[in-house]
Amino acid sequence: MTVAVTSYVAGRWQDPAGDRVALLDAVTSAPVAEIGTAPIDLAPVIDHARSVGGPALRELTFHERALALKHLALHLNGRRDAFYALSAWTGATRRDSLIDVDGGIGVLFTYASKGRRELPNTGVLVDGPAEKLGRGGQFVGQHIYTPRRGIALQINAFNFPVWGMLEKLGPAFLAGVPTVVKPASQTSYLTQAVVAEIIASGLLPEGSLQLVAGGSRGLLDLLDEQDTVAFTGSAATAAALRTHPRVLAGVRFSSEADSLNFSVLGADIAAGSVEFDLYVRQLVTEMTAKAGQKCTAIRRALVPEPLVPAVIDAVQARIRDKVRVGNPAAPEVTMGALVGLAQRDEVRKSLNALAGAARMVVGDPDRFDLVDADPRRGAFLPPILLHAADSARSEPHEVEVFGPVSTVIGYRDTAHAVELAARGRGSLVGSLVSADPDVVRELVLGVAPWHGRLLVLDQESAPESTGHGSPLPTLVHGGPGRAGDGEELGGIRGMKHYLQRTAIQGSPRAVSAITGTWVTGAPRTTGGVHPFRKSLAELRIGDAVVAGPRVITLDDIEAFAELSGDTFYAHMDQAAAAANPFFDGRVAHGYFVVSLAAGLFVSPEPGPVLANVGLNNLVFTTPVYPGDALTVALTAKAISPRVDSDWGDVTWDAVITNQNEAVVATYDVLTSVAKTWPVAPAE
Amino acid sequence: MTVAVTSYVAGRWQDPAGDRVALLDAVTSAPVAEIGTAPIDLAPVIDHARSVGGPALRELTFHERALALKHLALHLNGRRDAFYALSAWTGATRRDSLIDVDGGIGVLFTYASKGRRELPNTGVLVDGPAEKLGRGGQFVGQHIYTPRRGIALQINAFNFPVWGMLEKLGPAFLAGVPTVVKPASQTSYLTQAVVAEIIASGLLPEGSLQLVAGGSRGLLDLLDEQDTVAFTGSAATAAALRTHPRVLAGVRFSSEADSLNFSVLGADIAAGSVEFDLYVRQLVTEMTAKAGQKCTAIRRALVPEPLVPAVIDAVQARIRDKVRVGNPAAPEVTMGALVGLAQRDEVRKSLNALAGAARMVVGDPDRFDLVDADPRRGAFLPPILLHAADSARSEPHEVEVFGPVSTVIGYRDTAHAVELAARGRGSLVGSLVSADPDVVRELVLGVAPWHGRLLVLDQESAPESTGHGSPLPTLVHGGPGRAGDGEELGGIRGMKHYLQRTAIQGSPRAVSAITGTWVTGAPRTTGGVHPFRKSLAELRIGDAVVAGPRVITLDDIEAFAELSGDTFYAHMDQAAAAANPFFDGRVAHGYFVVSLAAGLFVSPEPGPVLANVGLNNLVFTTPVYPGDALTVALTAKAISPRVDSDWGDVTWDAVITNQNEAVVATYDVLTSVAKTWPVAPAE
Repeated sequence: MTVAVTSYVAGRWQDPAGDRVALLDAVTSAPVAEIGTAPIDLAPVIDHARSVGGPALRELTFHERALALKHLALHLNGRRDAFYALSAWTGATRRDSLIDVDGGIGVLFTYASKGRRELPNTGVLVDGPAEKLGRGGQFVGQHIYTPRRGIALQINAFNFPVWGMLEKLGPAFLAGVPTVVKPASQTSYLTQAVVAEIIASGLLPEGSLQLVAGGSRGLLDLLDEQDTVAFTGSAATAAALRTHPRVLAGVRFSSEADSLNFSVLGADIAAGSVEFDLYVRQLVTEMTAKAGQKCTAIRRALVPEPLVPAVIDAVQARIRDKVRVGNPAAPEVTMGALVGLAQRDEVRKSLNALAGAARMVVGDPDRFDLVDADPRRGAFLPPILLHAADSARSEPHEVEVFGPVSTVIGYRDTAHAVELAARGRGSLVGSLVSADPDVVRELVLGVAPWHGRLLVLDQESAPESTGHGSPLPTLVHGGPGRAGDGEELGGIRGMKHYLQRTAIQGSPRAVSAITGTWVTGAPRTTGGVHPFRKSLAELRIGDAVVAGPRVITLDDIEAFAELSGDTFYAHMDQAAAAANPFFDGRVAHGYFVVSLAAGLFVSPEPGPVLANVGLNNLVFTTPVYPGDALTVALTAKAISPRVDSDWGDVTWDAVITNQNEAVVATYDVLTSVAKTWPVAPAE
Repeated sequence: MTVAVTSYVAGRWQDPAGDRVALLDAVTSAPVAEIGTAPIDLAPVIDHARSVGGPALRELTFHERALALKHLALHLNGRRDAFYALSAWTGATRRDSLIDVDGGIGVLFTYASKGRRELPNTGVLVDGPAEKLGRGGQFVGQHIYTPRRGIALQINAFNFPVWGMLEKLGPAFLAGVPTVVKPASQTSYLTQAVVAEIIASGLLPEGSLQLVAGGSRGLLDLLDEQDTVAFTGSAATAAALRTHPRVLAGVRFSSEADSLNFSVLGADIAAGSVEFDLYVRQLVTEMTAKAGQKCTAIRRALVPEPLVPAVIDAVQARIRDKVRVGNPAAPEVTMGALVGLAQRDEVRKSLNALAGAARMVVGDPDRFDLVDADPRRGAFLPPILLHAADSARSEPHEVEVFGPVSTVIGYRDTAHAVELAARGRGSLVGSLVSADPDVVRELVLGVAPWHGRLLVLDQESAPESTGHGSPLPTLVHGGPGRAGDGEELGGIRGMKHYLQRTAIQGSPRAVSAITGTWVTGAPRTTGGVHPFRKSLAELRIGDAVVAGPRVITLDDIEAFAELSGDTFYAHMDQAAAAANPFFDGRVAHGYFVVSLAAGLFVSPEPGPVLANVGLNNLVFTTPVYPGDALTVALTAKAISPRVDSDWGDVTWDAVITNQNEAVVATYDVLTSVAKTWPVAPAE
């Protein structure tokens, strides 16, 4: 009996529509699931996302969404075994499944953590500092990000049914945009199983995640300019989607397409060295992981011309020693099947397309050992290394063989390696093994404009390296040109694709009202209760204390030098200080100036302000001389209660001025402030 | 006699190709210039930009490019009168010309200034902090931006022949990418005149700017995945360009298209109030400036239903009192001609398309007073206000009349105004006149996802407001959906479209070698000359001083409290401090910790380090108790010599640790350091 891959739409599971086709086990070709070929009724999907999912998500702050992702990641983490079982049907080894399943869950953990560490606990994200647009300071500009009011449609490839979904869900969810998942049919049963767990968990607001399995013709027709399509797949399909009338009319579209990723063995590396070995091991790993079905796999191995034979031999030896192809259920197997017989045929076809330009030097698709499987029923191929003797031929730089296949290409010098790497016309990733900083710099800066990610492997980084083929949630994933010119992940960067950036202009009062962040020039509230005596329940942006003046004496400066040990001449020696281009004579220490400002603005008794946890953007703008009288204005600028503790983060705008009203220093003071005061007893 | 609009290609001026057509004066229809209809030989343009312009630009640092822009802006500033004279041929008044000419030069000044203030003086831009990717700290990630290795092709609209070119040139030039300008034919003579001045000045490297006037068929066919096309014009043309095979193959394309910008009169505003008057004045300004030929003009005036008659009356009165249409050469004229008779006919056609949905309430295209001009030969129209009684009709939200035309639409409440504004399906700009923070917040956050820029006008901001229709170089210009989903300007943001972002992974040593910025974990050089004794000529990233330990005593804390005045209880009261959730007892002041760290790391005698100018990213991670022994490591992290002074900016990485090697605080110290020591005498 096989599973029917159902869709999750508008709060309920829906059977496949139209004729059903069987999805086959990659190892045995036995049917394991079936999927509909006709589209289900799609309008309710979009409607539900817009009318239920979007509003529910926008009710939450960034931290609340991040916390939901954390709980979800923990929940899925406890269900991995079930996912691994289904993953085996795709031909994946346990290690392959780990990349897909654990890798996907890892993305959620990263967004859960970064969302709370790097974003404010609000719904509007402020981008950059306010810009003064007029001399009087009553017309300012401020960029903000707000969630787009549409859906995030993800159209995924077959090779990462879990990671592919979660790496897009994490950023979109954090942004506050509901997701609709359209998985590739071949492996949709695994995506469906994960979606089912997510829905059953009840951890995400209803409408924030829906699944459309099977036919989806007409789905794009329903989208509008607030929707975002994130596509992963072939460059050809990406180009077709780009010309869809709705995309041309303004639906935001991004793609991450196949690419001819390179790996360079540095010109400084000798055969047989530690780095040589690192290069060969990484190459074989990339050829065999997921049976080479990764858009990030190494397709072109660029090797100094004289070392080509040594690399071929070493790859051959390593494959012979370490790689066993066959049924992933067998314990000795290290490389599983391709996703299906059709994909195996695709690879054979691509190999033929390369045949005129590259000779097979390791592996033979027609003769290889197979563990515990029937070569007629399982989609197996051995790792295959080609050698392109003529690096100028176009095929090795253009034909992507989406399987366990790489091509070795010799290069003359680093400049030539850069040129060859660039012939991929835009790739997701490249890597370099080198121990020479000059080679590293020349190659990386030379190829960077064509790449979304570049990995440098050396003896120092190797023990911790996550490998050429692994996109990380903290780093951008995507690449220019052929690779789709999209960007995903990269921490908070990846979330911004689902937000709209808008420049706001207006009076500081108006801008503050919009952003919830106090802007220079906006009204201040002074004279009442000291703001340090207000808990988050009472504190409002604009609450301020203005304190001083305090006159600085030469004795103060001497005492501070004595206490701190900082006897820099500009503080101690009148003549030497006056010779300094910035000063007219002895000046107070900058550290003293901010210290005494704190002395002026603090409210010393125990209260809701628990600690000064940091300081930011401190700029000294006018020197302070003995006799100067300093005043400080401290204003609550941003208030971000923590979603999981009794306190929150308050940023204060600090401005120190002298007796002439010249600004001496500006900075932000970062504090932890209790949500209530006295702090509520722990439960 | 008329001017031939020539092209500037590969270092020389080139005559128009093919048949020539005359370009006519907007006011008299007299021929003023002629342009070729066939394309010139285009391959040399692309070739020259790639082989000469790009390399020359990439030789320069960000600051050097910024300085070149400053000199260029100063140069063009001195040639404005010549540009105004040609601008008059386009139908522009002196005020219109100022928007175009001075506005364009202003963009260059902004990029000149921001480039030096906000970017390092290097060729590689580091994006965000390094990310630790492994526990051991020997595998890290760092995002960088590098210049794309292609060209920046700008395809411009007729309405801003100067600003349209310079607003794209500034960011691309600063990024290090050569520009090819393709102006709209109608007003190309003015663009050409400015290009001619730029070339004659010799201030930009050869190849960094070329001009293709006239036919350009086949130009896009020459582009590849490293090239960027920035298009300004109609949504229909943008859609056509998006489907060009080279664009589908990976040429980066961005567009800024026409849009149906709104301006809302807030529900809180009474007829006859100051804000009411601000609203009407801004509306009339936007209708008449450039004879309404601005993609940012107000097309939809959203007004509370009951105030519709009052707004119509006030607009009528203001136009009657203040607007004189006619020959811009006549001193009393405040509104000039459209660019040509064809454009006037376009406007008439669009008015007909709107006729079923909106009634003309102010102005009549067939009957209006004209100063010093012949209505049969000049492209004149009066300001026209329409009223759409049924706000639900689609036409007023979809038909852009690219001339002196706006439509008043009544709304019921703020939510309804938001809904109507969003019906533009993505616009460049919207504005709101309101004095109520709740109205401001609801409207701005409601419509932000559909807008690139939003202006709030009130009594505070009005005196300094630059107006609804003026994109500013410091703020992003563009809009989602129909407006093209592009972004230009926005300060440094606008430059990034011409750069590629790449995630670099590797050992800290390798990453530092690539970026020229020291990363935690990279080698430090200690033990030699104190780094404060090295000028920029000698200092290298990684040069470091490690100093300490110094034991903190309770006396130190008391003395610091006394001197600074900071007697916060956590420093002074053992029991109260211990009750604080963060502390176990009395702690040292954070300000004292960084002060004594400076006492440890400074080299006090006069030397090349001139001043501590600031501090950044200070985070206190472990409390410091009496008896703790602190050590500080200070490492040169980034070195940026100033392009126009004797010193530069050095950022130092500071890490304070205690006797248990726990990190107490991390921060960046910002200093000014002399290029040589002793400082070279001023010339």
